[in-house]
Amino acid sequence: MLGKYLENLRGGSPLIHNITNYVTVNDCAHILLACGASPIMSDDCGEVEEICSICGGLNLNIGTLNKDTIPAMFLAGKKANELKHPVILDPVGAGASSLRTETAKRLLDELSFAVIRGNISEIKPLAAGSGSTKGVDADIADAVTDETLPQVLAFAREFSKKTGAVIAITGAIDLVTNGTGAFVIRNGHPMMARITGSGCMLTAMTAAYITANPENIFEATAASICAMGLCGELAFSTMEKNGAGNSSYRNYLIDEVYKLTAEALEAGAKYKLV
Amino acid sequence: MLGKYLENLRGGSPLIHNITNYVTVNDCAHILLACGASPIMSDDCGEVEEICSICGGLNLNIGTLNKDTIPAMFLAGKKANELKHPVILDPVGAGASSLRTETAKRLLDELSFAVIRGNISEIKPLAAGSGSTKGVDADIADAVTDETLPQVLAFAREFSKKTGAVIAITGAIDLVTNGTGAFVIRNGHPMMARITGSGCMLTAMTAAYITANPENIFEATAASICAMGLCGELAFSTMEKNGAGNSSYRNYLIDEVYKLTAEALEAGAKYKLV
Amino acid sequence: MLGKYLENLRGGSPLIHNITNYVTVNDCAHILLACGASPIMSDDCGEVEEICSICGGLNLNIGTLNKDTIPAMFLAGKKANELKHPVILDPVGAGASSLRTETAKRLLDELSFAVIRGNISEIKPLAAGSGSTKGVDADIADAVTDETLPQVLAFAREFSKKTGAVIAITGAIDLVTNGTGAFVIRNGHPMMARITGSGCMLTAMTAAYITANPENIFEATAASICAMGLCGELAFSTMEKNGAGNSSYRNYLIDEVYKLTAEALEAGAKYKLV
Repeated sequence: MLGKYLENLRGGSPLIHNITNYVTVNDCAHILLACGASPIMSDDCGEVEEICSICGGLNLNIGTLNKDTIPAMFLAGKKANELKHPVILDPVGAGASSLRTETAKRLLDELSFAVIRGNISEIKPLAAGSGSTKGVDADIADAVTDETLPQVLAFAREFSKKTGAVIAITGAIDLVTNGTGAFVIRNGHPMMARITGSGCMLTAMTAAYITANPENIFEATAASICAMGLCGELAFSTMEKNGAGNSSYRNYLIDEVYKLTAEALEAGAKYKLV
Repeated sequence: MLGKYLENLRGGSPLIHNITNYVTVNDCAHILLACGASPIMSDDCGEVEEICSICGGLNLNIGTLNKDTIPAMFLAGKKANELKHPVILDPVGAGASSLRTETAKRLLDELSFAVIRGNISEIKPLAAGSGSTKGVDADIADAVTDETLPQVLAFAREFSKKTGAVIAITGAIDLVTNGTGAFVIRNGHPMMARITGSGCMLTAMTAAYITANPENIFEATAASICAMGLCGELAFSTMEKNGAGNSSYRNYLIDEVYKLTAEALEAGAKYKLV
Repeated sequence: MLGKYLENLRGGSPLIHNITNYVTVNDCAHILLACGASPIMSDDCGEVEEICSICGGLNLNIGTLNKDTIPAMFLAGKKANELKHPVILDPVGAGASSLRTETAKRLLDELSFAVIRGNISEIKPLAAGSGSTKGVDADIADAVTDETLPQVLAFAREFSKKTGAVIAITGAIDLVTNGTGAFVIRNGHPMMARITGSGCMLTAMTAAYITANPENIFEATAASICAMGLCGELAFSTMEKNGAGNSSYRNYLIDEVYKLTAEALEAGAKYKLV
């Protein structure tokens, strides 16, 4: 079922506008090219609306946000909403500072998002005004496990209804919900937490999947998350075979996204609709 | 004939000042080191003139330009002109926004460039005030093919005469002209379009080639473009052999530039002087 | 003796706040993850104090400093000093511009540093108000060799007493001194100078080592420098075996840091206490 979303992406090769952090920006560009899309990065208020207009989708990532890029996010987001382009939010480090939490909340208030993707410690403060963040990784106490799954699912459904966005909470187990249905996804590998940018790359790639599949954003988001997790598994095999470490792992992960076929995605996706 | 330009570069190890985008800046630094030069990145108005003075050449790249880096480009460019250092322009995404097109045009008006390198969709708007850009890739309709070659060559010669700069238009076929003579170069591989930064890296490397060969900027530019294309071919062999993807390809490409000898460049360069 | 500092780092997995340049920021994040720490990058004045508070240590790197990030360094540094978090300075390119030299000096005046790490051409201008910098590499004339070693050691001890910081001067030979004792370290490989970021990565990793070993910052700094040099040696073997170049070398270097054990560090560290 999910393979067709990758086929549409490869066929449509959408152009994605990214306002994102300078830590993982190069990896985001490469993963967009790997999955079949084209990236453009632009964050100056003097051009973001125009750049937005020539693109098909918008990826807003608040890692290394600053006083110049924050207004650019609002300008680009409003233009994208006006043009009915899908907009995705990655609230990197929400909960770690008031600036990040408040900026993410204001973005939610003023813009309409197709998808919000983060780990549980980043999503919680957006919804509840609470939560703690250790860097950009999910707080252990707030991890999604088999035990906490029902509770996190209920929370995510609620947040989806409140925002009108598909909510994707990723970690050891990944959840995607449109407020009613939900995917519980068990692809992925712990090694993905030993590189920087696996979250940022996933959000960027999801922007491409949903832009190429506007008629089914919910399932396209799940396809993107299964694809990333599956590629994380395959990349780990290459890392082990080569006796490599985390820097090479990052390259292998993007390489697998480049090589992924619709058939391999169908065969390797591990999800349950609940 | 072209090998000596690489020898001069390796012997001279020029220091290159880069004001460039944050997407591919790390790759630009690595390719400068790979080809035998040293990079320094600096874009604050408070220091760019001084940094410029300790360098041999200047690379201006307008990808992710912003209100702070634009004035830094003018300050650095004027200082480099004053010191007779070669300056190269990469008009990334010109045509995609007025900010980019107008900034590039103002740079052309106020500074003197040794070389301008871009794809046809980026160069056209600088010359003609028209053209469309899909991200930073050449628009298909405006690609350089055997059919369009004479027309694009005439355009490039005209633009070279107008600006006084060597014009390098790169794509499936690459052109380099000083207004009279022209190189038509057929090195390269389509895989180079599946990574981010192949254009930015080429411009950075060309800055090194021309800084080390001030007496023959035209041929040194052609040498740099042949070198990049040849390394793109070699990197593709490694990618195939390793069953890798686009992220590893980027590493292999820079690795090949690191390993390239003058002899290999002589032997592998595929060009015609027209 | 040095292995335990790596064990403490792996056990403690400190969160490190980095205000650093956009050239090598991704590599700094990866090396922090590789050695067992977690990175967070944040440089907006609106959040750096808060981010600082949730971290254990602070890494200030002045490469690509600008008018917005400079005040952020002071805000974060003061907060870290107040919280007794170790702060490390990497004076990238000090001596290359007044902005860099003067900013580094003001940081030294207003903040208290646990460690200062740079090459001799960067450290000299901080101490003496003189010196020349070729990009971010040590000037040949000012290299640390067996001949200049006693003189540079005396200089470093003096500077350590003046600043109260452990001084680490790295190059072909590395020195670490707390003003009285000194490590002379002979790990490393010339290939480390053919990539960008080996210095930045070393400083970031040292931030992690000292944050995890607050009771012995002097020896933890030496452990970090031995670890980096040793990994540089191991990465060179992989590069030779694979017929690779400098871009892959960067990945191999980080990979080796990821794979390094306390035992391998003990066995491979080449240092003398003088």
